[in-house]
Amino acid sequence: MLALSKSIGTVETQYYTLEEDLELETGNVIKTPTIAYETYGTLNDQKSNAIYVCHALTGDAHAAGWHDGDKKPGWWNIIIGPGKPLDTNKYFIVCSNVIGSCKGTTGPSDINPDTGKEYGLDFPIVTIQDMVNAEKKLMDYLGIQQLYAVIGGSMGGMQVLQWTLSYPEMIRNAIMIASGAYSTPQQIAFNAVERQSVIADPNWNKGAYYESDQKPEQGLSVARMIGHITYLSNESMYEKFGRRLQNKNSFSYDFSNEFEVESYLEHQGFSFTKKFDANSYLYLTKALDYFDVRKNNSLEEGLKPIRAKMLIMSITSDWLYTHEHMEEIVLALRANNVEVTYSKLNSEYGHDAFLIENGQMNYIISNFLSKATVKDVMNKNVVTLQDNKSVRDAAELMLTKNRTHIPIVDSENKIIGIITAWDLSKAIAKNTDNIEEIMTKDVLTCYEDDSIYDVAHKMEEHHISGLPVINKNQQVIGNISTTHLSNLLDLE
Amino acid sequence: MLALSKSIGTVETQYYTLEEDLELETGNVIKTPTIAYETYGTLNDQKSNAIYVCHALTGDAHAAGWHDGDKKPGWWNIIIGPGKPLDTNKYFIVCSNVIGSCKGTTGPSDINPDTGKEYGLDFPIVTIQDMVNAEKKLMDYLGIQQLYAVIGGSMGGMQVLQWTLSYPEMIRNAIMIASGAYSTPQQIAFNAVERQSVIADPNWNKGAYYESDQKPEQGLSVARMIGHITYLSNESMYEKFGRRLQNKNSFSYDFSNEFEVESYLEHQGFSFTKKFDANSYLYLTKALDYFDVRKNNSLEEGLKPIRAKMLIMSITSDWLYTHEHMEEIVLALRANNVEVTYSKLNSEYGHDAFLIENGQMNYIISNFLSKATVKDVMNKNVVTLQDNKSVRDAAELMLTKNRTHIPIVDSENKIIGIITAWDLSKAIAKNTDNIEEIMTKDVLTCYEDDSIYDVAHKMEEHHISGLPVINKNQQVIGNISTTHLSNLLDLE
Repeated sequence: MLALSKSIGTVETQYYTLEEDLELETGNVIKTPTIAYETYGTLNDQKSNAIYVCHALTGDAHAAGWHDGDKKPGWWNIIIGPGKPLDTNKYFIVCSNVIGSCKGTTGPSDINPDTGKEYGLDFPIVTIQDMVNAEKKLMDYLGIQQLYAVIGGSMGGMQVLQWTLSYPEMIRNAIMIASGAYSTPQQIAFNAVERQSVIADPNWNKGAYYESDQKPEQGLSVARMIGHITYLSNESMYEKFGRRLQNKNSFSYDFSNEFEVESYLEHQGFSFTKKFDANSYLYLTKALDYFDVRKNNSLEEGLKPIRAKMLIMSITSDWLYTHEHMEEIVLALRANNVEVTYSKLNSEYGHDAFLIENGQMNYIISNFLSKATVKDVMNKNVVTLQDNKSVRDAAELMLTKNRTHIPIVDSENKIIGIITAWDLSKAIAKNTDNIEEIMTKDVLTCYEDDSIYDVAHKMEEHHISGLPVINKNQQVIGNISTTHLSNLLDLE
Repeated sequence: MLALSKSIGTVETQYYTLEEDLELETGNVIKTPTIAYETYGTLNDQKSNAIYVCHALTGDAHAAGWHDGDKKPGWWNIIIGPGKPLDTNKYFIVCSNVIGSCKGTTGPSDINPDTGKEYGLDFPIVTIQDMVNAEKKLMDYLGIQQLYAVIGGSMGGMQVLQWTLSYPEMIRNAIMIASGAYSTPQQIAFNAVERQSVIADPNWNKGAYYESDQKPEQGLSVARMIGHITYLSNESMYEKFGRRLQNKNSFSYDFSNEFEVESYLEHQGFSFTKKFDANSYLYLTKALDYFDVRKNNSLEEGLKPIRAKMLIMSITSDWLYTHEHMEEIVLALRANNVEVTYSKLNSEYGHDAFLIENGQMNYIISNFLSKATVKDVMNKNVVTLQDNKSVRDAAELMLTKNRTHIPIVDSENKIIGIITAWDLSKAIAKNTDNIEEIMTKDVLTCYEDDSIYDVAHKMEEHHISGLPVINKNQQVIGNISTTHLSNLLDLE
């Protein structure tokens, strides 16, 4: 048992430039884009413990830990780290900046190789699916063929859903927080007004402002102020600001900022313009608008491909991505017989609660991930030996397949015993080639729906390092070892 | 019984220019402002049937009926007119444009007499109280000393509350819909962003754009778009627009308007710039921000002056002016022993429901106004005669006080009979000066808490035109006549 420190420590953003072009949903391409990403924790030998974290509208690859010299950690440090629900002692966490953004991954503020100038509006429209496809390229590059989980809130939640649809076999667990299966007209309306505010700024100059000293800061600032209001609840704003005045005891009765909430928003809007590209803001809000995974107007039909186990989390005071909408997703998943857990985060913080409520999130997410079953981690590459074979056959199989345990099955493939490397030494001592004489007939097995926790305890109790996984007909369908588990569980 | 037509027909806006300056809450003045107003129905002789209608942020004096050549009636035509809850057969309805607006009443787009140019930012800041004070000047001008009711939604509801506080004895009934007792930080935040959008428009030019061809239309348009979203509920937007595309069958994947909701908002924003002054928008949203009727942070204390009977109406789907806030007002009123009725308008239309839900509003408002009691309309100027007086005294009193009915009271002022002008003719015929011989001893009376409906039916049943109003001790405290009632009731 490791002593757990709660921080990852210093981290660095890495960059991966695709060797090929990224093909987009629209048929357009982005030439050999670069993807900014960070990783925390260690990828296990089976490469089965990776969790991909999807960020929201204005987020970046820096999800956790500290950049050298920074005063604040990554944006989701509250749930990522040793001993936290996205436990870097167990999991290998990957987060990358979405395509179209401006935080290291290629977007409209980057140089268009065709012109040698910033893309601006020559950057193609990107969708949530394009983001996920770019993230998939990164997973390929990292050699990750299966994600133990994918998780995200808001626009991150949309990517989560898209992951489970675009690459259903690749995702074991998916956690979608305060998000949606399609953008509603209210969400589109806010996005449209925010874009309108940027576009109305004369400094925007049809997106070609990169070489000018005058950036569309006024427009982007108003856009961010609007967005910011929608991320807070009425209650939390009252808690935070009330009707307190800004550095004064009585009204000025003029058009200066009278109230603290005005100054706060203005500051948020202005400082945002220093860290985010106006064109990226246009492109990413467009991607939100287009998102709709329904098919033939049916959410149930749209969600049919999903194979992952799902955790859907809504926030009680979120009026932009409502719990009613999240419940619609839960119902559609249940109609499709997807295993889904639904949790309401009780919070007054509004939409932003998924960046704040660490206590409840820790509890809900940890519970969900620890509900993982044998199926989530077992090795499906089955190696068995017929009971009419010899000890020598068993030894050869162990050598060629690199196994220490070989289940022995009858003619119907039902398990009747197990033979281990240690059993081979018994055969040598007894000088027998008969498997029946040396195999263990009282075999411990498990089912694919067993809880990982239960199976881990079973192995620990019996001091064994592996178990065959069988189906209801006693047939072997896989195996699970403590090596699989040790990467996933904090065994006490 | 009148045959009721449901429309007022053609109406005209009138203008009243104050002879004196309007003093403002800040200590500033507006020099002899003009107030645009409209009236519907007829003011009765007692001037007791006037109802003042307060408009919302961008409203005007044209609340009902039709302007010559217009395609649409006034903004609250659904509840004002013959047979409607604000029944022009019973009531005299007055609505005026608020001070600071741009719809006929003096505001920043009008000429500053000191400079001969438009006020622009030289116009002083106005508050909700200033609006109500201007409206009071209009009531003075119209000779209305008591308002049977004052009614309004949103910013109109704030004026309603301010009326009951600034002129408590003047208001008999007050109807406040989807409004607030103070602006919340969320409301202030939206107002601040909307103003920021106008101010950020270079054409705004610090408010001095009147002589330019370039008006701050982009900024005002975005401001209106934001406002518009806040007036609609998530549900109603889904009902109205869904994710329907704008005149196309598939996405364009560019920055044109893809969705119907985008085009709708853009149209709303743009057409608003053609009918509303950007500076007025700044001033009126400021007035909203300042509004807070609490005293020492206590709503109960702030509402202490209220004498009116109150109807508080909230809208279930209004997320900007929430029912929780309206319920806070109801509780404070109840703590002050104010007679208050609370009704929730069940609607999916959001804040704008008070301009739409005619069925429910008709029912709730009619019920509230018809719950009027004798106290609301009785004449409190008591004329009685002691029972030791002569018939001649009674006749003289009738002549000097212009009464046809005189209650006769004993030494404790308890009613023991009544004498009418017709009784006097009996005295002449009988040649008696003894009141006891001619007065009616079986007197019909009523109490001040009796429903006006019941009293009206009682008078009709007994074919009498007036009743003394008595207290529990049988003492006369006023009188009520069919003349009072006929202006208020549609007697069947």
